[in-house]
Amino acid sequence: MHNEAKAPAFFDMIRWDAQGLVPAIVQDAATGEVLMVAWMNADSLSRTWTSRQTHFYSRSRASLWHKGGTSGHVQHVQSIHLDCDGDVLLIGVRQVGGACHQGYRSCFWRKVDVDGGLIADAERVFEPTDVYESKQSGGG
Amino acid sequence: MHNEAKAPAFFDMIRWDAQGLVPAIVQDAATGEVLMVAWMNADSLSRTWTSRQTHFYSRSRASLWHKGGTSGHVQHVQSIHLDCDGDVLLIGVRQVGGACHQGYRSCFWRKVDVDGGLIADAERVFEPTDVYESKQSGGG
Repeated sequence: MHNEAKAPAFFDMIRWDAQGLVPAIVQDAATGEVLMVAWMNADSLSRTWTSRQTHFYSRSRASLWHKGGTSGHVQHVQSIHLDCDGDVLLIGVRQVGGACHQGYRSCFWRKVDVDGGLIADAERVFEPTDVYESKQSGGG
Repeated sequence: MHNEAKAPAFFDMIRWDAQGLVPAIVQDAATGEVLMVAWMNADSLSRTWTSRQTHFYSRSRASLWHKGGTSGHVQHVQSIHLDCDGDVLLIGVRQVGGACHQGYRSCFWRKVDVDGGLIADAERVFEPTDVYESKQSGGG
């Protein structure tokens, strides 16, 4: 944990999983578009709370991750909701650029068509190679 | 699996977890409101696909679960999206009644206020005791 006098009360209402994580759905606060899902631990949520920009915990890299730290595509937090079971967060944001490291505004850019195949359901808002140099998968 | 000639192609694009499950975000297709999150296995997704009503897998009860089977609060599927990593589904629905077993339209009815406490951010759309008799937790 970084320097914080005391965690906000709602931290105690979260049912963190066995690894101390909770999934966070990130939603465009203006349009309702679901942008992405990522994991938070207490530290990343604390930084999200104090900075009002989303921070996540990368399970594959086992490290804290400031969304937009590399790309500039930060998410300004407008609201936080907790579900009835206390095990999922819903974060309303103002998204700068795109949430998806593949260049789309939303990570949910693939839609199931009537035949059960996947089709692109969005246009790219940026070129990933312009934003991420020698970048591993996972947004930045 | 119940009788199905063949699973739709997008099933093969899903990165099921070690338990054979994938989380599904359920969103009101008309308003964009995020209603709930629940788990699906291949069987529940197959039934969702064929019936066009959501079916989930309850980890606590280790059983298939037809949303609205008890309460009548079914979810008519309008769209299905898969995220870029292939490990989260986004289901657009027309929700009958409320998604939350506590009587709210959305399970995300608790909002974090400016002080970090939780406040109710919605009105009940039904009385849980009217809908669920001697009902365990978890929507129905």
